[in-house]
Parts: sequence; structure tokens; C-alpha cells
Amino acid sequence: MSILVLGTAALDTVKTPSGLRTKMLGGSAVHFAMSSRLFTKVHLVAIVGRDFPPAYIHFLQRRGIILDSLLTGVGRTFHWAGEYQGDMNTAITKKTELGVLSSFSPVITPVQRRIKNVFLANVDPDIQRSLLDCMDDPRLVALDSMNFWIQNKRPSLVRMLKRVTIYVANDQEARSLTGEHNLLKAAQGLLRMGPAMVLIKKGEHGVIFFSKKYIFSLPAFPMQRVIDPTGAGDTFAGGFMGYLARAGRFDHKSIKQALVYGTVVASFNVEGFGLNKTSLLTMKDLGRRLQRYRQIVLF
Amino acid sequence: MSILVLGTAALDTVKTPSGLRTKMLGGSAVHFAMSSRLFTKVHLVAIVGRDFPPAYIHFLQRRGIILDSLLTGVGRTFHWAGEYQGDMNTAITKKTELGVLSSFSPVITPVQRRIKNVFLANVDPDIQRSLLDCMDDPRLVALDSMNFWIQNKRPSLVRMLKRVTIYVANDQEARSLTGEHNLLKAAQGLLRMGPAMVLIKKGEHGVIFFSKKYIFSLPAFPMQRVIDPTGAGDTFAGGFMGYLARAGRFDHKSIKQALVYGTVVASFNVEGFGLNKTSLLTMKDLGRRLQRYRQIVLF
Repeated sequence: MSILVLGTAALDTVKTPSGLRTKMLGGSAVHFAMSSRLFTKVHLVAIVGRDFPPAYIHFLQRRGIILDSLLTGVGRTFHWAGEYQGDMNTAITKKTELGVLSSFSPVITPVQRRIKNVFLANVDPDIQRSLLDCMDDPRLVALDSMNFWIQNKRPSLVRMLKRVTIYVANDQEARSLTGEHNLLKAAQGLLRMGPAMVLIKKGEHGVIFFSKKYIFSLPAFPMQRVIDPTGAGDTFAGGFMGYLARAGRFDHKSIKQALVYGTVVASFNVEGFGLNKTSLLTMKDLGRRLQRYRQIVLF
Repeated sequence: MSILVLGTAALDTVKTPSGLRTKMLGGSAVHFAMSSRLFTKVHLVAIVGRDFPPAYIHFLQRRGIILDSLLTGVGRTFHWAGEYQGDMNTAITKKTELGVLSSFSPVITPVQRRIKNVFLANVDPDIQRSLLDCMDDPRLVALDSMNFWIQNKRPSLVRMLKRVTIYVANDQEARSLTGEHNLLKAAQGLLRMGPAMVLIKKGEHGVIFFSKKYIFSLPAFPMQRVIDPTGAGDTFAGGFMGYLARAGRFDHKSIKQALVYGTVVASFNVEGFGLNKTSLLTMKDLGRRLQRYRQIVLF
């Protein structure tokens, strides 16, 4: 079963201790799609400007990502510039040029309206709502956001949480939305806000999943060298949703497996700048690393 | 097989968001012993002052901890006062009164010299060395330390690392001893310093274990409420060493199980002040929580 992902397609300028890359292909929807394409058909809903290199379009198409609803607006592509230092856990944003993103109004095809699995990656919650309003009868809707929207569009975000199955957050976002420092209490607070499931990403410390019935906790794949963590969270979500969409069910066993696949695919993301590693990835590579992960975690 | 633990017996004054406790029984060797006694016979090597309450002696004896080498010195018992705030991950030390600890020279009995499993909990590395020099033929020697000794007695500590099987550190200590931020690189650096195995405790983020051949990573047991984390690391080490001593072998399967038991027993420590929870613990309680942990982690 296919997935529809709404989010950003961006040009990313990233500086890390390993080097500087200028205007690479990036964005939340793009990282998500590059990961979930390994599991199922992915339809990307985003906007780019007229400066968006045609080579990037071909690059996405060659990986089988469906671009019927990738709009081109008048203006420049969303450009993010950031830097990672030290523990590489937090990006220092140097520049955010919204460009065409500031007037983004998603449009989808009649076929896409009927897609059952929807991932609302990080964009303005009002844009997330307008996309969800277009969907006929989605079965699994997951939503990601960021601190900027928690602070500036909290009522919109809170309304959206009542309409989604899974809220995907990082630990800071979970804390800031609920005011609870303890992650279990924060997750319980988030579950009370509407979603049936809450998935909290903790970066190098792994991931923890909550529903009313279950808690699952997994460590990250231990990495010796982190080149560029940009997009790791969306890559995780892509593996997680990709697995669930392919499995066609979300019982607790499938969810655990999906968390494992998300963890493993995210470990490739950080090993290269931008999409360098994930765009070359095959299910065989995933399978091999999954075996190593099993040895590291299972007892 | 029994364990000999060298470390501190202390009076702890602890303030956390849950309250204040004054001069509770604590110390690295005491927390370790309270946990490892669930698995095997534990001999405690430490020093207290004349102010040490007899009730605390009886408390330890009633839990089966062997006190033949608990010395009483002239002066006051080691007293630590600290406070935890916010994320409860780091203690703010308010007071450290060494008392009799400043002239501690461990003495053990002929029977204790022949014990095969030794845990050198956090004390001056020169005291750790003098104890190890007394042992006839230890089979498994684990050593814990702290940033104070890394900064102030680095050569002594480095010499000790060549003589131990397992170095137990927290993430900060591993980084500060090697100058490597990445934990995998830090662990490789530590392995080159001598120990066959390195165990890095990450508090609420779990634990990661390294040998030349294996990496194991486990999340912590998710806790909704942390009352007092003092001694959690030593409680972890007690469960870990206790399991290994009882198993009588340290192949990779036993080590994984030992890490799991350490994780589970440490989760009880943080649920109460001082030894409130761990002193009441039974193997049945451990078994029950282990079952829940399996559901949370295994896939």
C-alpha cells in the first residue's frame, strides 16, 4: 500500500566537522521519501522554486518517487543553512529562507486522495490540515512537527493531534508541548491530546514508542562516525511508515518491526552528507545491518 | 562464587524534587553490595567513622552482606551532600567531607584474598591498587572510577586499567579519559588502555558494552518517576557482576544477561531514596520486572 508524504523539498547548506556542502537536495518530505521508497510506492507533496535543479527532479524520479504533486512556485526553493558541532545532536540554524514555502498550498490528484497511509512531515500545521482535509479516508496518519510550530502555532497543532494516529516528535518537542520533563509523563500527556500512538525520537539515544497499551524502547545503531545527521528523523519515520504500509497492519508486532527498520535505515542517513547514503541503499544493505543490530540488542 | 567489593560506605544527604534525606546509608560499595547480594555472597571492604550508626551495620548484616573487612577509623564517616534538579541526570555536589576515607588502607582476611570476583568501586585508584595487590588470583576484576580521579590521579588510574578485566565508566568519564566525544571511539581508546571489556553507563539512556569482538546496547527501563538516582550506577554494576559471579562464566551470552539484570535492578534503585527500594528487593521482584523489560525491548 502506498504512502503520501507532505513536507518540504529543500536546498540544504550544511557544515559539519566533516566538511561543507552547499545547496544539496534535502527537506523533510524528500528524506522521508528516500527512506520509505525502499518499502513501498511513495507520492511526494511539496513545493520548489524555479531555481530547483532539474537534476534533482531526475534524481528523485530515478528512485521511483512519484512527483505528480511536486509543485513549482514563483520564487526560490526553501533554503536551510545549518551547522553541527561537538556532539552533533543539535543543528545551529544559520539561515532559513522560506521562498515559495511561504505561499505553499498543497494540491493532490484524485488517485492520491484515496491513499491510505499519510505522513505529514514538518511544515506549518495549517498546511498539514489543508492536505488532510483533501484525503478521502486515510487509515494511518502520522504527523511530525517542530519547536517553531509548537511555539507559534500551538492551537493549530493541537487541533491536528486530534486527527492523527501517530504523533512523531523528538524528546525536546514532546517536553515543550506538554511541559513535562519525564518522557513517560510527556508521552501520556500527548496520548491524552488525541493520537493513539506517540513515537519519541531521541537521536543517538534511540527511540521510544507509546500507545495506551504498550511501551517499546530501542537504542540507536551505534555509529562510529556521524558525517551529517540532517534528515535522520525523517529517514527514521520513512522506514517506520514504509514498513507499516507494506505490512498493511499496525498491530504491536508490526510496530516493533517498523521501529527496528526505522532505526536501521536512519543509521545509514548519518553516514553521509544529505542523501548520499540513503539514495544508494537497497533492501539487501538494510537486511545486513539489521542482522548486526539484532546481535547488538537482542538477549 | 562470591564477590569482594571495595569502595565507600557513606552517609548521604540528598535533595531531589521529591524531598530531602539527611545522612542516609549510602556509598559506592554499599549500593553495589545491596544489589549483588541478590545473586551471590558479597564481602564489603570499606571504612566508616565512629559516628556510623550501629543500626546501619545491622541493616547490612540482615541483608547477608559480609562485613569482616568493614573497618572503623578514628574520625567521621565519609559524608556526601548533593542535589538533583530538572532532568535528574547529574548531581550537584554541595559537600564532600572525606573524614576517615582520607586515611583508608584496606585490610582483608585470608579467606577474602582467595575470592575470584572483585569489584573496585569508586575510591582513590591508589587504594584500589593496594587492595588488588592483596588478592591471590582474581579471575574477574572490574573497576569504576570518577572524573575527580581522571583529572587528579590519571597515571594511577591508567596503570590500574592494565590490570582489570572490565572498566565500568559513565559516558562523561569515557569521553574525558580518552578525549573522544564519540562513544565508540572512546570505547576503542579505552580497550587499547588494557581492559578486555568496557561498560559505559548512560543513565536514563541505558548502557553500551564493548569488547574487541562485541558491542551490546540496551535502553534503560523507562521510569515514570525518579525519586533519587544516587547509587544507580553502582546498583547496576552490582547486578551485572552479581549475575556473572553466579553464572561462573563470562561468555558473550552471560554478559548480555548480566547487562539486562544490571539494567533491571538499577531501575528499582531510582524509585526510592537511598537503599529504600533495593534493600527490600527479592529475585521474584526482579523476575517480574525483567518480564516487562523483555516486552519493551525484544522484537
